[in-house]
Amino acid sequence: MQALPRTPEVVTKQASNSSGFLGLLRHTHHQHACPRDPSSGRSSAQIVQPALSLSTEQSHRQNRIVPQAMAIEKEEQIAHAPDSLLRQDIDKPDSMRGQFERAIRQAQDSICAAVEDLDGGKFREDAWTRPGGGGGISRVLQGGNVWEKAGVSVSVVYGSMPAEAYRAATTKAGHGTNGQAIEGRVPFFAAGISSVMHPHNVFAPTMHFNYRYFETDEYNGIPPQWWFGGGSDITPCYVNAEDMQHFHGSYKKVCDRHDPEFHAKFKKWADDYFYIPHRGERRGLGGIFFDDLNDRDPQKLLAFATDCMGSVKESYLPIVDTRKDEPYTPEQKSWQQLRRGRYVEFNLVYDRGTTFGLKTGGRIESILMSLPRTAQWDYNQQPEPGSPEADLLDACQNPRTWTS
Amino acid sequence: MQALPRTPEVVTKQASNSSGFLGLLRHTHHQHACPRDPSSGRSSAQIVQPALSLSTEQSHRQNRIVPQAMAIEKEEQIAHAPDSLLRQDIDKPDSMRGQFERAIRQAQDSICAAVEDLDGGKFREDAWTRPGGGGGISRVLQGGNVWEKAGVSVSVVYGSMPAEAYRAATTKAGHGTNGQAIEGRVPFFAAGISSVMHPHNVFAPTMHFNYRYFETDEYNGIPPQWWFGGGSDITPCYVNAEDMQHFHGSYKKVCDRHDPEFHAKFKKWADDYFYIPHRGERRGLGGIFFDDLNDRDPQKLLAFATDCMGSVKESYLPIVDTRKDEPYTPEQKSWQQLRRGRYVEFNLVYDRGTTFGLKTGGRIESILMSLPRTAQWDYNQQPEPGSPEADLLDACQNPRTWTS
Repeated sequence: MQALPRTPEVVTKQASNSSGFLGLLRHTHHQHACPRDPSSGRSSAQIVQPALSLSTEQSHRQNRIVPQAMAIEKEEQIAHAPDSLLRQDIDKPDSMRGQFERAIRQAQDSICAAVEDLDGGKFREDAWTRPGGGGGISRVLQGGNVWEKAGVSVSVVYGSMPAEAYRAATTKAGHGTNGQAIEGRVPFFAAGISSVMHPHNVFAPTMHFNYRYFETDEYNGIPPQWWFGGGSDITPCYVNAEDMQHFHGSYKKVCDRHDPEFHAKFKKWADDYFYIPHRGERRGLGGIFFDDLNDRDPQKLLAFATDCMGSVKESYLPIVDTRKDEPYTPEQKSWQQLRRGRYVEFNLVYDRGTTFGLKTGGRIESILMSLPRTAQWDYNQQPEPGSPEADLLDACQNPRTWTS
Repeated sequence: MQALPRTPEVVTKQASNSSGFLGLLRHTHHQHACPRDPSSGRSSAQIVQPALSLSTEQSHRQNRIVPQAMAIEKEEQIAHAPDSLLRQDIDKPDSMRGQFERAIRQAQDSICAAVEDLDGGKFREDAWTRPGGGGGISRVLQGGNVWEKAGVSVSVVYGSMPAEAYRAATTKAGHGTNGQAIEGRVPFFAAGISSVMHPHNVFAPTMHFNYRYFETDEYNGIPPQWWFGGGSDITPCYVNAEDMQHFHGSYKKVCDRHDPEFHAKFKKWADDYFYIPHRGERRGLGGIFFDDLNDRDPQKLLAFATDCMGSVKESYLPIVDTRKDEPYTPEQKSWQQLRRGRYVEFNLVYDRGTTFGLKTGGRIESILMSLPRTAQWDYNQQPEPGSPEADLLDACQNPRTWTS
């Protein structure tokens, strides 16, 4: 790892294996009172896209841009995860930060226990902190009876972003600084849970989920901001309508408990986000995805995110339980491996959380925990027309509706 | 594939699976008279880095920047490769463009024939053209007796880059436009041969090579420019000093035939370029790498590049021939697969040629031909201290000298 400045000048994406840091183009949403009374919402993407400061020496050496301004503190391994990763000196347990952390810790415990029950294997745990505060807990089960690789990580980050990144975001969006000059770095907080689970059986789908909460602190007269983001999505190798109805139906029920407009909007957003442009395919068969969510009472949104996390087990594990022992052929295994190759392509080329985390010195093993155990790339492979493989490919190219 | 404008507003990297398009930071080199009498040299990177024009609608939809200004024409498959992919109406056979094309076509034929001799299998060929001129030929051998995947591609591109990209490059470098405003798009020509060969046997290394030639045309009073780039590098899974001395020694001999300063400089450049920052490792054990080469009579540089291509067989095939039947264990195969995972990480995350080609609509199957057939990712895997695996890892972290 390159030598990195050891200050809390950090931005990380360990817990957020998805779109939170997507760039400067997201529309703003309506403001809403929050624990810190923000006056505008901003997408995680808009705020956290780094201003890439060029290190010419390193670039000459390595021929790539090194975002020095966003360098991350090296994590320090610890033996046991503390009850809370928050900075006890500044964050109260009953704050939204505290509530959200409890929600993701509880979800991690609950989901890992249920996966272990079904698998028979055990997660190994790595915990770490960072000198400036925050830290994380990665749990990984590898080479289990049911899952080739399953990981569930939580992360808490105290970071700051360069003024240029914040200014660029707010200028683009037309909000925020309103032309006011900012110097220095804008502090932010982020917490999240992130998971990917890849089963052995070719008929048992991969699932990914991520739920995160961001706050930027008040800074030089710029008001603080907050928002929720996240989603759950499913990646099978073969289309099983029953399974897809169960998964999508589960998340429709969750969404409908909170807002009748959520599901259609977040289902489409997932289809748009998990798109592999160079393939013209989605990574899988979608689910729900949302970002920049701050248009109502934050307690309501915490309840929604908590409900989403709480529905992982029920939406996913029954499918795996049903499919985990289905017989399959070597050709079908090969097809699964080719689809795993697509998963790797999406994560390493497009997933901003992954690429950003890799390039700013996040905890690599946690970030790349999302990659399947094995993958395959064949030259110019095309499924037989009319085959089940072609059907899956079609569903990835042309997203379907699974719920009424 | 997204709908792309069908004009020759193209930039592609099919043939150049390496650093040619590296960004705007490369130092300029001395000028030298060339067939078109340029007044300055410029790195392929500086010129071709796209000015990323934002498509806000697509970004909102896909949460990623779509470089519309650099969209590429869709390739048209053809039954047989023509004798020349050059535009017969503008390029003469005895031009440098014509000479370089003949060199890469001949190298492709010669290397593929020798690989088939050793493997017993056959390459399949795909050829294509583009409406605005140019095209390519991909040859792939998959699931052979010796190689799991071997590909050798040639490509000829007639493209243009937005004025902003050219201006940014020249402003950075302090040459070129000298502040002169440019409108429109700057035309360029690129030709190259690109290859990656991954054997089955864990003791037989992977080899990659690429050799390319660029020209930019005179435009609005800006003088034309030209340069050569390329390299050959080796990626074993285990350190075999004899094999490394052979490979590196072969390329030292080639370099020494042309300039006593080449080898030390290009060997170091390879160690710097094939670096995976998030791992702190090189992709392999290096070789030679150069770019922006235009500091002398272009015929001399053509001779150097041709000699490099001509040395692929002798530097690599004897090693593979010696190692292809060595016995190995499942654990050693697993180690190979983990190193293949690193290869995928470098190519998909850092290799500008690959990521650029993917994002601007190049021929995906040719670009991703470089990926191994299979790869593996284990969580937090560390080799045993003192083991041969640890030795290889050390050699990737701390490049060694193999020649005197």
